[in-house]
Amino acid sequence: MSKPTLPQGTRDFSASVVRKRNYIFNTIRSVFEVYGFQPLETPAMENMETLMGKYGEEGDKLIFKILNNGLAEGATPEKALEKAARSRESFEKLLSGKNISDITERALRYDLTIPFARYVAMNHGQLTFPFKRYQIQPVWRADRPQRGRYREFYQCDADVVGSRSLLNEAELTGIYATTFTKLGVPVEIRINSRKILAALAELCGGSDKMVDITVAIDKLDKIGLEKVKAELAQRGLDENQINIIERYLLIAGSNTEKIEQLRALASNNATAAQGLEEINFVLNYQPEDAPLAEVVIDFTLARGLNYYTGIIFEVKAKGANMGSIGGGGRYDDLTGLFGVPNLPGVGISFGVDRIYDVMEELNLFPQEVEASTKVLFFNLGEAECAKAFQLAQELRARGISAELFHEQAKFDKQFKYAEKKGIQYVAILGSEELQNGTCKIKNQSTGEQNTVAQADIASQIQ
Amino acid sequence: MSKPTLPQGTRDFSASVVRKRNYIFNTIRSVFEVYGFQPLETPAMENMETLMGKYGEEGDKLIFKILNNGLAEGATPEKALEKAARSRESFEKLLSGKNISDITERALRYDLTIPFARYVAMNHGQLTFPFKRYQIQPVWRADRPQRGRYREFYQCDADVVGSRSLLNEAELTGIYATTFTKLGVPVEIRINSRKILAALAELCGGSDKMVDITVAIDKLDKIGLEKVKAELAQRGLDENQINIIERYLLIAGSNTEKIEQLRALASNNATAAQGLEEINFVLNYQPEDAPLAEVVIDFTLARGLNYYTGIIFEVKAKGANMGSIGGGGRYDDLTGLFGVPNLPGVGISFGVDRIYDVMEELNLFPQEVEASTKVLFFNLGEAECAKAFQLAQELRARGISAELFHEQAKFDKQFKYAEKKGIQYVAILGSEELQNGTCKIKNQSTGEQNTVAQADIASQIQ
Repeated sequence: MSKPTLPQGTRDFSASVVRKRNYIFNTIRSVFEVYGFQPLETPAMENMETLMGKYGEEGDKLIFKILNNGLAEGATPEKALEKAARSRESFEKLLSGKNISDITERALRYDLTIPFARYVAMNHGQLTFPFKRYQIQPVWRADRPQRGRYREFYQCDADVVGSRSLLNEAELTGIYATTFTKLGVPVEIRINSRKILAALAELCGGSDKMVDITVAIDKLDKIGLEKVKAELAQRGLDENQINIIERYLLIAGSNTEKIEQLRALASNNATAAQGLEEINFVLNYQPEDAPLAEVVIDFTLARGLNYYTGIIFEVKAKGANMGSIGGGGRYDDLTGLFGVPNLPGVGISFGVDRIYDVMEELNLFPQEVEASTKVLFFNLGEAECAKAFQLAQELRARGISAELFHEQAKFDKQFKYAEKKGIQYVAILGSEELQNGTCKIKNQSTGEQNTVAQADIASQIQ
Repeated sequence: MSKPTLPQGTRDFSASVVRKRNYIFNTIRSVFEVYGFQPLETPAMENMETLMGKYGEEGDKLIFKILNNGLAEGATPEKALEKAARSRESFEKLLSGKNISDITERALRYDLTIPFARYVAMNHGQLTFPFKRYQIQPVWRADRPQRGRYREFYQCDADVVGSRSLLNEAELTGIYATTFTKLGVPVEIRINSRKILAALAELCGGSDKMVDITVAIDKLDKIGLEKVKAELAQRGLDENQINIIERYLLIAGSNTEKIEQLRALASNNATAAQGLEEINFVLNYQPEDAPLAEVVIDFTLARGLNYYTGIIFEVKAKGANMGSIGGGGRYDDLTGLFGVPNLPGVGISFGVDRIYDVMEELNLFPQEVEASTKVLFFNLGEAECAKAFQLAQELRARGISAELFHEQAKFDKQFKYAEKKGIQYVAILGSEELQNGTCKIKNQSTGEQNTVAQADIASQIQ
């Protein structure tokens, strides 16, 4: 048989990568928890109708569908297909996508938001609102694989639903600030309000311009001001309107200066005033103990998704060449699509794959995260091995990871194993040590070697 | 839109269940780690050819297949089907399962062993052997859902490959013993050797009887001795042979007594002697610090899977009416199917769903596992709220989970929120407390209420 491979866009994570990823997940999780967010886990597969139509036409195409299978005795994908194709008519319906449900009824989760909405809609009678949940699970997208884009990747979300209070935005800002400070990643937490963008649309003649303006502004980072202006012109905005937008995009300085400039530009606009009030509220609640995070107003921040209605967030790592490593915002209606209207909320997300890359680039993972086995006991004879097994057990009971070489072998081979696995200490227990109740401990990184009483091994290596 | 539902056989896990499950996972993980096992994570989807044909015909049917999707511009399941069905010939091939790869090339992982084998085969040049890995991930099976059987469930495996040493079996026994002692679950770790079963087949006239005998014995627990004998007769064993098997199945007593009885039954059989040597080795290495685990010989233990060749394990909880909560054994060849021959190994698995049920039944989860938010700050005015936010931040920085009620509301409403969420303390900070630098702390479970200095809140609630 030929050498096996992995499906395109998927990855194996070996020990050191799992450890580093878990360090990120555990840090985020611990912050979610101290802010009172509760964990939720939903299944990998959802019913097709739960997912379809929620992510736009492009999104629908990227959802992984699962072939019907095993529901009935002897059912197979072939039988499901055969059933669907039993007549010319039903086969044509199948080909035209009209009874695709004959062959697929379930699909893999595409994000964590829709499964969360589905969960809230199914359980809203039992939940305590405001409901604060976090969720850390993989999602699957049939995207064309490319550098940094995978078909299976983790999302890491926190949402509060059932509250319009801006305190939630303030707390989510605090979660970002605390988490990145704990991870050692210096960040800018950029905030804006969709209401400011709505105000800009009003200044440009009407809220029907909102989509055109946000879509163009969203590209500012990538294509620059001149091309944004060209795109706005193409989208039918006149010189005067583009002028206003240019003045808006050129707003700069400290948070206070930016607010002043916006006030000058949008004086007397009530929507802008509301947006500024939201932003000021969040700025006033900046956490004090998060020195690595800076909360900055970014009026050019638009966020692609249309469902945002209030404060929007985006996090950028300072000193690393990387897109946003977090984002989110306020929405008006989480569960309306599932028959439960009027449930507003606000949420944020961490981009764990990118955070990982930034931490690698800036060398931010603490050394102990990668720690392998702490000590390897050599295997030097039957009685020696029995004693070493017992001593290893004693270390393990104290939480020290220990291995015993699996067979009697030459010193060389056992040293090589310790070296390859990056084990810091080797414990050598030969016939002499067995007799004396001692053990040689060698520090593999310094080369230092000591003979200690067997009872002192733990203190020697800690 | 109608109320959304979950796919059959899948589950949402709410906060308290996630916490309890994580308690089990984290306990198992910590024991794997102190024994020097390294984490591995593989993707949810594997190439079809990696999985198919590895689990028998029944297994193949239970593998969830994923529709081809999104590989090419505008690709959809419909288009894939259309392509497969472009001619009568190719459609008939599709229906007969011969070019099913036109519509599906990937499938969801069915267990953790085959992905592990695939990983080892792909990376064996880079790995250090013996390679000790653990893996805790969900798997998917299109089984008919029923009580306690799900279509998505976690497996939790540890394997050592590249070593024939029985020390590995001894250490895996130690992992079981330590883990269940830590979890507080009293267990019997039952062991046997496939070599003993092979010897029994030899005593009954030939190793060709091995499958008949193990299949029948495997049912002993369920159908009892008489029906096992009837099945053996049906499978063509004669009275004399059935007699030997009956004497074998009636072996009882302490481990030493069982060994003696087997020796009497299989005197001069070299295979039995080998099997007993293996068992004795493992028994001699029983860990001393695991009082809740008892290692017992169970010669009736067969384990369904044919690939086991040496020691086999099964774990039963004492005092709970539940099937095995763990199992495993030694195999000769992990990766031969993937072109890398001669890689023997031994592994064990934890049945987390069943362990969860046993722990619920025996009330073994520590209370702190379920801990929700520790303290809720009431929201009693703008200035009060700002102060409360700051105090909450201070508690969070110390690792104490704290919430601030999201809006100014009547006491009643805020108390009710604390009650519903099971929050132990409420912190009341009104205008008077704000002025005095104090805070009222009420213990919700005792009703006790104290006014303390704001700096003393943490010590008051710990």
